[in-house]
Amino acid sequence: MTIHRRMELLTQKLAEQCREIDRKSIDRFMAAVMEAKKIFIHGAGRSGLVGRAFAMRLMHLGFNVYVVGETTTPPIHEGDLYIAVSGSGKTSTVLAIAKTAKTMGARIGVITSHPDSPMGELADPVVLIKGRDAVKGGNDYLARQLAGQHEPLTPLGTLFELSAMVFLDSVIEELMIQKNKTEGELRTLHTNLE
Amino acid sequence: MTIHRRMELLTQKLAEQCREIDRKSIDRFMAAVMEAKKIFIHGAGRSGLVGRAFAMRLMHLGFNVYVVGETTTPPIHEGDLYIAVSGSGKTSTVLAIAKTAKTMGARIGVITSHPDSPMGELADPVVLIKGRDAVKGGNDYLARQLAGQHEPLTPLGTLFELSAMVFLDSVIEELMIQKNKTEGELRTLHTNLE
Amino acid sequence: MTIHRRMELLTQKLAEQCREIDRKSIDRFMAAVMEAKKIFIHGAGRSGLVGRAFAMRLMHLGFNVYVVGETTTPPIHEGDLYIAVSGSGKTSTVLAIAKTAKTMGARIGVITSHPDSPMGELADPVVLIKGRDAVKGGNDYLARQLAGQHEPLTPLGTLFELSAMVFLDSVIEELMIQKNKTEGELRTLHTNLE
Amino acid sequence: MTIHRRMELLTQKLAEQCREIDRKSIDRFMAAVMEAKKIFIHGAGRSGLVGRAFAMRLMHLGFNVYVVGETTTPPIHEGDLYIAVSGSGKTSTVLAIAKTAKTMGARIGVITSHPDSPMGELADPVVLIKGRDAVKGGNDYLARQLAGQHEPLTPLGTLFELSAMVFLDSVIEELMIQKNKTEGELRTLHTNLE
Repeated sequence: MTIHRRMELLTQKLAEQCREIDRKSIDRFMAAVMEAKKIFIHGAGRSGLVGRAFAMRLMHLGFNVYVVGETTTPPIHEGDLYIAVSGSGKTSTVLAIAKTAKTMGARIGVITSHPDSPMGELADPVVLIKGRDAVKGGNDYLARQLAGQHEPLTPLGTLFELSAMVFLDSVIEELMIQKNKTEGELRTLHTNLE
Repeated sequence: MTIHRRMELLTQKLAEQCREIDRKSIDRFMAAVMEAKKIFIHGAGRSGLVGRAFAMRLMHLGFNVYVVGETTTPPIHEGDLYIAVSGSGKTSTVLAIAKTAKTMGARIGVITSHPDSPMGELADPVVLIKGRDAVKGGNDYLARQLAGQHEPLTPLGTLFELSAMVFLDSVIEELMIQKNKTEGELRTLHTNLE
Repeated sequence: MTIHRRMELLTQKLAEQCREIDRKSIDRFMAAVMEAKKIFIHGAGRSGLVGRAFAMRLMHLGFNVYVVGETTTPPIHEGDLYIAVSGSGKTSTVLAIAKTAKTMGARIGVITSHPDSPMGELADPVVLIKGRDAVKGGNDYLARQLAGQHEPLTPLGTLFELSAMVFLDSVIEELMIQKNKTEGELRTLHTNLE
Repeated sequence: MTIHRRMELLTQKLAEQCREIDRKSIDRFMAAVMEAKKIFIHGAGRSGLVGRAFAMRLMHLGFNVYVVGETTTPPIHEGDLYIAVSGSGKTSTVLAIAKTAKTMGARIGVITSHPDSPMGELADPVVLIKGRDAVKGGNDYLARQLAGQHEPLTPLGTLFELSAMVFLDSVIEELMIQKNKTEGELRTLHTNLE
């Protein structure tokens, strides 16, 4: 299979995944973001990188947004929103921080493949992005692939992570409209030190 | 426009972007990755996050891979590969490091929207991923959007970053095949501390 | 009080703190570092920064060392050493990771002000660095200071963090001797990309 | 030599280094920090970690402070202060960012062992912290050490980094007094998510 064919299958699968995201959960997620005093983003591994990409754009849109674990991140309080990106919904450091954030009175949101996980049960809104993830993916995938099945491989959490990034970048677009922000305005809040 | 419609437009645009990536440049990129003794990944902002997501999977595949700027990253030498992810191809810190890496005898690769940029001129392989980027995107995009045009907004480098991530995850899939690695083998190299 | 006077008091206090570190715990710590296959360093906030400064030097000395949470950190296994820097000994993310590391069969070490904390009970070696820390420091410190008492202020974990850094840099010096490494050899392992 | 003896020599050397810091440069540094609208901290390697430890405490004191390169760091403008920690004063990424910050109209400060370096010439205030550093340290150090000389080894930039940390923590103490902040007030701005 060529890499072009892989990219084609992968984007098709992404489109499919994104279609299945529940509309009401999107509305709740958007409302939570718009209402929060401060927003704290958290995640481990590649999910954490996706979360940080989202945080960067929220900052460009003028939100008070922070990444958990970075140097000058302030404390969280009532009225704030904590958002975790966690495919499995049970990453131990994410869960430990989410519980603390809840104790502090913050609202907890999660983007996950497992709404029935500890994170899913703790959170509202919960945005379910289905897909193979680090918990369920089986080894027979490669065998089926080699046998000529036209599925993308998307090892481990790949499909969840990419779908979450497409979802969150679409949320950013919608927030641009709702806040009536032009790209030029985003650029004025983009770092000029890189 | 609903967020579902935005996600649909965005994945279509991603598929289109990916189709246009030059096949020969992909082959050169794959070969450079396969031949390198050590691989060093670098990038600023969201491009840097995309680079780190790629680095993590290369590690799961058993490559000797490091992120420039992290704590225990070793020095670069001849026989090593430095890969920058840079839409504009002229990010000052990336350029400064790339020049040093070249002086040290390393091979320089870049994923960029601007092959004619300083980074593009320095590098081989150069993978061109077209798209609006932080340098060229115009403000009239939002106006056209509000006027009902069905283009995705993709502010600043969004389209480049997402396309680069789809491309790099497809490279990972191909490397799995070439190195005959199952998902289970990737999992044994995934961090167990998160 | 001038800043010069503050620096004088602070370095005196550092010297005093360091004198009180138990010699046997240092020996156990040194042995654990020397025997480990891989070393994983962890910590939150300023303690985490001190840990990373130590990790960087261990890398310069040729150890296989990683920082928990960084992009290309591999999984931990039996024969490896996990070292936390935690004044309170009860930071939730550190504790969550330490427990996992123990389950994986790794040896757990901690540098802490509270050997009777959950981290202290989990770990061996435990290096006790006394001092005011984020848990016990009282607010009357500033009042006493303003009343003319010649104590350094060292808010929150300052004294622990600085003492830990002096201790760990002294460990590095001793490891240079034990491994017969010159400064020039350290330099050849220092990153050349910065 | 025991590690206790090493720690003793090291703290003596730190005290000595700190005594030699020019008083007027400290005053200029303090004034620059107090007057800045926003403060941006930057540095590579262990110097960067020391800078981040300083940034964290400035945040606890209520300053608008950011670390260059972190996810939600805003752009720099006139009226802002950029502070680099750089022993050699010529780290390429630091220099590239400092030049950009100057172009943007920001004030540039540096803590360095080399006031005559490119960074030193760019900056005001310049705080000189003498000491062996990554540029000048010679290999005969270990030989002299083994020959019984009672100098601390302090490989590469160790002495600069530790002295800078003691200096910056003493600046924090003085800022507590000047801003009339108790430790309890600092604690209310300390992250509660770790």
